[in-house]
Amino acid sequence: MSDNTSPSRPVRPVKTATNSAEWRRYKEHLRAWKNARLDKQLEAEKTEEIQEEQSVSSIDTPVEIPKGRSYTLSIALPASILRNAQSNELRTYLAGQIGRAACVFNIDEIIVFDDDEITEEHDNNPFSASEQLIRLLEYLECPQYLRKQFFPRQKLLEYAGLLNPLDAPHHLRTNESWLYREGVTLPLKPAEGKGSWVDVGLYETRVQIDKHLTAGLRVTIQRTDITREQYFRDPNAQNNKKKRIPGEIVSPSAPRLESGFYWGYQVRKADSIGSIIENCPFVDDNETEESKYDLVIGTSERGVSHEKITNFPRFRHALIVFGGLQGLEKAFEREQNGTTAEQLFDFYLNTCSQQGSRTIRTEEAILITLSCLREKLLASARS
Amino acid sequence: MSDNTSPSRPVRPVKTATNSAEWRRYKEHLRAWKNARLDKQLEAEKTEEIQEEQSVSSIDTPVEIPKGRSYTLSIALPASILRNAQSNELRTYLAGQIGRAACVFNIDEIIVFDDDEITEEHDNNPFSASEQLIRLLEYLECPQYLRKQFFPRQKLLEYAGLLNPLDAPHHLRTNESWLYREGVTLPLKPAEGKGSWVDVGLYETRVQIDKHLTAGLRVTIQRTDITREQYFRDPNAQNNKKKRIPGEIVSPSAPRLESGFYWGYQVRKADSIGSIIENCPFVDDNETEESKYDLVIGTSERGVSHEKITNFPRFRHALIVFGGLQGLEKAFEREQNGTTAEQLFDFYLNTCSQQGSRTIRTEEAILITLSCLREKLLASARS
Repeated sequence: MSDNTSPSRPVRPVKTATNSAEWRRYKEHLRAWKNARLDKQLEAEKTEEIQEEQSVSSIDTPVEIPKGRSYTLSIALPASILRNAQSNELRTYLAGQIGRAACVFNIDEIIVFDDDEITEEHDNNPFSASEQLIRLLEYLECPQYLRKQFFPRQKLLEYAGLLNPLDAPHHLRTNESWLYREGVTLPLKPAEGKGSWVDVGLYETRVQIDKHLTAGLRVTIQRTDITREQYFRDPNAQNNKKKRIPGEIVSPSAPRLESGFYWGYQVRKADSIGSIIENCPFVDDNETEESKYDLVIGTSERGVSHEKITNFPRFRHALIVFGGLQGLEKAFEREQNGTTAEQLFDFYLNTCSQQGSRTIRTEEAILITLSCLREKLLASARS
Repeated sequence: MSDNTSPSRPVRPVKTATNSAEWRRYKEHLRAWKNARLDKQLEAEKTEEIQEEQSVSSIDTPVEIPKGRSYTLSIALPASILRNAQSNELRTYLAGQIGRAACVFNIDEIIVFDDDEITEEHDNNPFSASEQLIRLLEYLECPQYLRKQFFPRQKLLEYAGLLNPLDAPHHLRTNESWLYREGVTLPLKPAEGKGSWVDVGLYETRVQIDKHLTAGLRVTIQRTDITREQYFRDPNAQNNKKKRIPGEIVSPSAPRLESGFYWGYQVRKADSIGSIIENCPFVDDNETEESKYDLVIGTSERGVSHEKITNFPRFRHALIVFGGLQGLEKAFEREQNGTTAEQLFDFYLNTCSQQGSRTIRTEEAILITLSCLREKLLASARS
């Protein structure tokens, strides 16, 4: 074994000392050798780490950038269900169940329709059921940090503290990385040639957009200091600690259309079941026509078992309609324009055959229906 | 036109009167003719009705008598979920949601297991979460007319009025026909040679069984004044107005095993997730071995997507296990006997991929999971 002490390939010194001076020299050698070995190990580890990092975030490596989603799922339900709850607390809780069910299944729109004559309540409740349901659903959908701004203290939201949170992707926490964020325009005077400031719920960080806007508007922001590609390559690389992040206002549908993010639901009211298919709010690219629901499904225990449907026709905007305690049939009785179930629905499905309870509550039906139809629906959705 | 007045084929008298006597005779004739026509019509209608009835309930017509069901579905869930509810009212409501979800999907057994260290609560709630959940589930399952007997006023049931009713097949109303019924033995002294009286929730009708039993027992009754065949041939032919209906005590599983009725769920407690599969309570005919769960499915967002499972192996007693807020993984951490998820579960499934909320609450997971697995489960169930 040769005494090769070159630093590139150190060899452990051989213990040949016979006196104390040689012994000291030997120990010094040994220490040097040990240190060299340690340095080398550390260096090797570092190189490995860098290589690993590069293999993950190297510009040459293809990163999977999520595709956008152009199809939408809407649900419609009767306002009367709220009236069947026993107290304002439980009415609030019920609205929360509906909001959560919608969120769990990526529902883009909730339509609340009136299904009975009682549109105003006079039993010490000055709000109509649809008004209350819509307000609660909107409150729940709004990111927590914007609620004070858009939902001042009010009787309708008295028990909002009982709502279970949506925990939706657009309810971003302060420490989370982001590409899009909901915000409110601020009443701060921007510098000459600069756009308005937007509060996006980050304590020390504000977004500056390129336009001047009135204060107090709810806006969807896309940050412009990084590209979509950069974001998806390494979402955690962004620095949220900056005082100013440049951004631009995008459509609330942009996170879905561009990046396939679920970005909450919108809520609207329809006067009766016959008018739910009017005013489809979605914007389709490359289409000159107005958008409309191209797959409308009614749910009822008197419908055909969903198991008999092997697949749905291709659709872009699906709408699933739920009845109240007395079923969808009741809602049609009230319909003034004479719209019938046959005219409205492409499918009339029973999504829970052999049910062990005589009744299925609407908040249960939403989860049950979306769960068993999900696979078939997604297979027929136009990307 | 001949004046044919034979009663079998009356002809309307012709108005030929020229004086008052003839006029009176004519009117008498007309009245007689009208009466005869009315009688004939009534008779014809009656005959038609009888024929119709015979064509429905004729002894020669094959009647579909439902088959029994020997397979069972059980669910297990952690007691901790109750602790996450904000108030006793909401805890009660949550238990109600779970009971209803179980009922809608014909669940035969609910197992409540402890999944964290806190088994007793000291924040002004003297009951453990599992105790409260079990009591509420049992209360909900009990037919309304037996509740006063088996659930005296108590703190745990303070808000039971908030529970949405199960509306299960064994919660029979007084005007409904029945073959089986839940009841309580009465402290009435029966006549010599006769059995005990049972209150089955019918105001003027009691059931007399063939045995002597202590008063105050909850029993399942099968009426013996009609056979199963007679019942299914014409459920509405029974007379519920009798003062005494003869019956016999059957196992609570008899309605399911013999006639395929869903007959509510039973509830039991397990000390930890590792012990949920012990004490499978179902009785199998023609089997010498003790019954056991032969298909155990765990649910977790970290499981395999349920869509990848095309079918389950044949089973008789399936058990589906749900986690709490922190998932099933948390429950295994606490497991003292070292049972692992791999040992316990035949399948570990994610039943809601692409969920739009970061969390799925257990009461939601039950509906979602049972809805999307239902078809596959039933296809693999041994009849």
